[in-house]
Amino acid sequence: MNQTEVLSPPAADTVRETLAECRAATLPALRTAVEGLHPRLARISAYHLGWCLPDGTPTDGHTGKMLRAALAVLAARAFGASTASAVPGAVAVELVHNFSLLHDDLMDADELRRGRPTAWVAFGRGPAVLAGDALLSQALRVVTEVRGTPVQPATGAITSAVDAIIQGQAADLELDGYPVDEVDTDDYLAACAKTSGLLGGCLEVGAALAHAPAPAARMLRSAAWDLGVAWQIADDIESLWGDPTASGKDAYGDLRSGKRTYPVIAALRSDTPAASRLAVRLSATEAPAEAELAALAGLVMEAGGRAEAERTARRYLDQALHTLSRAGGEAAAVGTLTALFRHVLARHQQWTTRVPTAPTAEGAVL
Amino acid sequence: MNQTEVLSPPAADTVRETLAECRAATLPALRTAVEGLHPRLARISAYHLGWCLPDGTPTDGHTGKMLRAALAVLAARAFGASTASAVPGAVAVELVHNFSLLHDDLMDADELRRGRPTAWVAFGRGPAVLAGDALLSQALRVVTEVRGTPVQPATGAITSAVDAIIQGQAADLELDGYPVDEVDTDDYLAACAKTSGLLGGCLEVGAALAHAPAPAARMLRSAAWDLGVAWQIADDIESLWGDPTASGKDAYGDLRSGKRTYPVIAALRSDTPAASRLAVRLSATEAPAEAELAALAGLVMEAGGRAEAERTARRYLDQALHTLSRAGGEAAAVGTLTALFRHVLARHQQWTTRVPTAPTAEGAVL
Repeated sequence: MNQTEVLSPPAADTVRETLAECRAATLPALRTAVEGLHPRLARISAYHLGWCLPDGTPTDGHTGKMLRAALAVLAARAFGASTASAVPGAVAVELVHNFSLLHDDLMDADELRRGRPTAWVAFGRGPAVLAGDALLSQALRVVTEVRGTPVQPATGAITSAVDAIIQGQAADLELDGYPVDEVDTDDYLAACAKTSGLLGGCLEVGAALAHAPAPAARMLRSAAWDLGVAWQIADDIESLWGDPTASGKDAYGDLRSGKRTYPVIAALRSDTPAASRLAVRLSATEAPAEAELAALAGLVMEAGGRAEAERTARRYLDQALHTLSRAGGEAAAVGTLTALFRHVLARHQQWTTRVPTAPTAEGAVL
Repeated sequence: MNQTEVLSPPAADTVRETLAECRAATLPALRTAVEGLHPRLARISAYHLGWCLPDGTPTDGHTGKMLRAALAVLAARAFGASTASAVPGAVAVELVHNFSLLHDDLMDADELRRGRPTAWVAFGRGPAVLAGDALLSQALRVVTEVRGTPVQPATGAITSAVDAIIQGQAADLELDGYPVDEVDTDDYLAACAKTSGLLGGCLEVGAALAHAPAPAARMLRSAAWDLGVAWQIADDIESLWGDPTASGKDAYGDLRSGKRTYPVIAALRSDTPAASRLAVRLSATEAPAEAELAALAGLVMEAGGRAEAERTARRYLDQALHTLSRAGGEAAAVGTLTALFRHVLARHQQWTTRVPTAPTAEGAVL
C-alpha cells in the first residue's frame, strides 16, 4: 500500500478512538486554563473555542478534534509516559493554537471560522487581540508550572513553537504584498512555519514530558514539520477547490485577498499560456470580481498548479512518515501516530478522489 | 524630609547615572533580541522603540530611559549579582513592556506615542499585533535560555508579569464601557495591574537571577506593585493637566475616549454639585466636543478629583518606599532603588508644583 493512500477502515477507527480519548483527557484541563482568565477574556476564548454564544450561553458546539493535543499525548506515550503526564503539554499546544487563530483571523481579516463570525468580528479587535495574548500567556504558565519533570525542554518546545508560528505568520504577510513574479516556493515554505512550527512543538513537548532522548525528540519535531507543510498545501488546495460548507471557510477567500497560495505559485511558475493569463490578472490593481473567482481557479488548474500542489503535498507526507518511522519509541504509539499523520491529510480527500492526477514524481522534496 | 518630596540634586544625579549605566548594559542585548526577529517584525519593533523611521532609516531617537531594565538590574545587585547576570532579565522586561505598548496602542486606538504615529498607524493593525507577539515570545526565550541560574523563578517572574499585564488591560477595557455610577476604585485598582504587574516583574526577575530569598523577592515585587499604582494615578493626572508636548501623548486623550481615570472616578464619587454636572455630561451618548474638554477637566478639579488623586498617589508611593526599606539587600543598591522609586513620580512634578494641595491625609491606603 502506498504510504499516502487513504486510511483503511480499521486504522480510521483507531484514529477516531484515539482522538476522542486524548480529547477527553485534555478537555477538563483546557477548560480550567480558560476559566482562569479574566472573565471577559474567558468569554471571548470560550466563544472562539465553540463552547458558548457571544453572550456566554453554553452551546453544544465543540472544540474540534483537538488533533494537536493528541499529537502531544501520543509522542509522550511513545516514550513511556502516561497520558496524564502529557496533559499540560497537550493543553499548552491547544492554547498556543488558539492564540494563533485569534490573532491570525484579525490579521487576515477573516470573518468566518467554523461557520461562525470570528472573535474579532463578534467582540471587537482590541478584546480579540487581548484574548489571544491571554491564551499565549496561559500556555506558558501551564507548561512552566509542571512539577517533577524537566521543565526547560518542555518550555523550550513551546517557546520555539510560538517563535516559529510568529516567524511563519510574518512570512505569510509578505506573501500578500509581493509582485506575482517575485514569490517563489522558498517564501512559501518560510510561511509554512506557522503550521509546521506548532505541529513540531506538539511532538516535541510530548517527547520532553516523557524524558525522551533529545535526538528522538528532534526527529519527531522534524517529521511533524514536514507533515505541516503537506497540510498547509492541502489547505490551500481546499481553499480553491474544496467545499466551503465542509471547511467552514469563505469559498475562494485566499484568491479574493490575493494571497499567494501554493497552487497559485506553482501555476505562475509553470511555462504555460494559462500562467501568463493568470499573471496578468493577478497583477491588476483591482481585486477580482466575485463572478471571476471560479474562472481564476480554473486558470490555476489549467496551468498545472493543482497537480503540482498535490504532488508536493504527497512528497512531504511521505517524508514525514519516513522520518517518523526512524525516530524510535514504542511500536503501538508510533503506529497510532503514523495513522494520525495520514488522517491529517485524509481530511483533504477531495484532492485524492475528485481529480485523478499523474503518478507521484520521483526525486527529492522540492 | 517627607518621603514623597522631589529628589535632592545629588540623588537626581545618582538616578541619572544609574539609568544611563543600566541602559548601556542592556541596550546591546536588547538590540540583538530585536534583530533576531523576522526582518519585517524587527523593523516595526525598531520603529516603535525609536531606533528608525518607518522605512528603516536609523534615527538618533532613543528607547527612553529604560527604567524597567534599571529596576531589574538594581534588584539583582541588591542581592549580590553582577549587572551582566541581570541583563537577560532586564532585556526580558523591556521586551514585555514594548509588547504591551504595541498591543495597548491598538486596543486604546492611541495614534501618538512619544510624539510619533503609533506602530499600528504606521504599519497597519495586523503587522503591529504580530510584532507585539514577537516581542513577547522573544522575552520568554531570552529568560528561559539563561544558563546556570535558577530558570524557573526567573521565568515565573516574567510569565506572572505578563499575566498581570493582560488581566490589568482586560480590567482597563471594562473601565470604558461602564455607566458612570458603576465604576469604583476597586475596578480601577484591578486595571492598575497592567502597570504594577510589570514593575513587580522587574524587581522579581532581578531578585530571581540573583538567587535572592523568596520572601525578599516577594517584598520587592509588592513594593514595585504599589509604585505602579502611584504611577498609574500620576499618569492619569498628567493626561488631564499635563503638558502634551512633554508627555508626547494626546492632550485630553483619556477624557475624549471616555476612559474612567482615577481623577474622574474620585470626582464622580465626591458629593459635590460639580460631580453631578460631570456625571450628566459623561453619561451623554455623544462624545464631548474638543472645545468642551478643558471645561470637563475643570469640573473634575472642582469636584476634588485632582486633589484626591494626588493624595492617593502619594500614599501608594509612601507604602512602596516603606515595603522596599524592609525587603533587605545591600544598602547601596537599595538606596539607589529608593531614589529610582522617587524619580518615577518626580517625572510628574507638575502635580506637586503647579497646584498646591492639602497635606496628605492619614489612614490606610484606599
